[in-house]
Amino acid sequence: MSGGGGGRRPLLGGIEAGGTKFVCALGHGPDDLRAELRLPTTTPSETIAAAVEFFAGAAGRGELAAVGIASFGPLDPDPASPTFGHITSTPKPGWAGTDLVGPVARALGVPVGFDTDVNGAALAEHRWGAGRGLDTLVYLTVGTGIGGGAMVGGRPLHGLLHPEMGHLLIARRDDDDYAGSCPFHGACLEGLASGPAIERRWGRKAETLPADHPAWELEAHYLALGLANLVLVLSPERIILGGGVMAQRQLFPLIRRRLAGLLGGYLQAPALASDHEEYIVPPALGSRAGVCGAIALAEQAAADHRG
Amino acid sequence: MSGGGGGRRPLLGGIEAGGTKFVCALGHGPDDLRAELRLPTTTPSETIAAAVEFFAGAAGRGELAAVGIASFGPLDPDPASPTFGHITSTPKPGWAGTDLVGPVARALGVPVGFDTDVNGAALAEHRWGAGRGLDTLVYLTVGTGIGGGAMVGGRPLHGLLHPEMGHLLIARRDDDDYAGSCPFHGACLEGLASGPAIERRWGRKAETLPADHPAWELEAHYLALGLANLVLVLSPERIILGGGVMAQRQLFPLIRRRLAGLLGGYLQAPALASDHEEYIVPPALGSRAGVCGAIALAEQAAADHRG
Repeated sequence: MSGGGGGRRPLLGGIEAGGTKFVCALGHGPDDLRAELRLPTTTPSETIAAAVEFFAGAAGRGELAAVGIASFGPLDPDPASPTFGHITSTPKPGWAGTDLVGPVARALGVPVGFDTDVNGAALAEHRWGAGRGLDTLVYLTVGTGIGGGAMVGGRPLHGLLHPEMGHLLIARRDDDDYAGSCPFHGACLEGLASGPAIERRWGRKAETLPADHPAWELEAHYLALGLANLVLVLSPERIILGGGVMAQRQLFPLIRRRLAGLLGGYLQAPALASDHEEYIVPPALGSRAGVCGAIALAEQAAADHRG
Repeated sequence: MSGGGGGRRPLLGGIEAGGTKFVCALGHGPDDLRAELRLPTTTPSETIAAAVEFFAGAAGRGELAAVGIASFGPLDPDPASPTFGHITSTPKPGWAGTDLVGPVARALGVPVGFDTDVNGAALAEHRWGAGRGLDTLVYLTVGTGIGGGAMVGGRPLHGLLHPEMGHLLIARRDDDDYAGSCPFHGACLEGLASGPAIERRWGRKAETLPADHPAWELEAHYLALGLANLVLVLSPERIILGGGVMAQRQLFPLIRRRLAGLLGGYLQAPALASDHEEYIVPPALGSRAGVCGAIALAEQAAADHRG
């Protein structure tokens, strides 16, 4: 990718830290991603060292303004906490309690922004994508897992910790006897509606199910239940649905219709009508939302550092 | 009530607009509420006229800086909308589509702040009560209905509309055969756990049930399910539970324990431990949270007006 911004502006580094791969990039945004490195996620020390090495040259030449890390979680995003920058309770072997920010900041000597991968994606869609100009939005990814991030008042949402919308506790539908796949909650949203849940319920990989298979109507029901609760709590101005499962575009109209049915006309807003196509949308940045989220976190860290 | 602030500062007017009564007050906060009027909620024109009359003297003498209206809803809190200041889809006869802000602003000639009663209560608890110093909190009232408001980044939460946390869609428990009382959703949180739902399920007024009645364990289960979803979406730093049902103080430890169980250890934060008593708390302002919320909205409107 090329063009757009840049010139002699110091570069921003982004690390999309995922459970299976790390994606590292230098640039200024989706139209200016200059170099990219994809690493398998092995041990923390090995993976972090390889990411640091990727940025070290630019940092040494004084060309690196900041690094952003958009990570799988749960994690500690509170700069005032002693475990700021750590992954906390992940079931991924070897990664619980890993400090991501510390080693990167010490090795590169630049400000490091840190947030969940999905808060990063929400920030990137707000900055460059399907959420520009909005005050409040949700980004939900539906794939191997389900995760959600949010922007409120133009900033990624934090509080006690950070949103964990993938684990919303919803009701299993009477005609569904699949127990749910989440190791923590069984039949939470992720347990009932992630890609692996679809595969285990129907005995086939989700992407091999035809577009008119009943799996999609049930999937839309569960996702709409989760979205209904998001709307009732957070009242976002737009919901962006990404991730591998959402590549099944037939889900979008099914979800819109089901959401309107579940809300029962209680909330009066044109956006919530079943035929409204601008409320529940795919990400404008597509699969680049993750790494662009990390770049956006770096941009924010650089700005916060300047004061 | 007396004392505290005041002196010659212009007064703030607050209207707590409820479905059964309107409470109007003049003052500066919980320690300085000077005059109070309680009106039954009859027709919109009659009720609003009586409220306006209460403030007219102070406005005429130039002593009134602003009025805040903390209202039942759903309502339109968006100042850029043509229906700003209106109640929208309430089932209360005669009140759907009522403009509350317009008549008050025209009659009194002062800035008028407007929000939901529960966002107002969240703001008041943030300003003077159990939420001081926090960035993100939830105020949930459990009584005749269930409603929730939130502060994020020190401001009441809005977006597409406003939070409607009372209508969270949760799972009915297997051993509960009560269908739910919500006219819109049947078995939503309000439909399963409001005061009237308890009464209809057990055939007795909630406040006549002994503290060790199984009703309270089921009530704690449903409220904890709702709170779990609030925590997973919004990650508040504190949850304040008010309203008539929460006068049953035995609910607090039951809810804390059940919430910890439902979250299954996924979120690691000391506040979410079952024996943590500072996370789920009663309102510090007690029954004054509503009218103080209206005063706080007036204070905000006056500040916004000054720029």
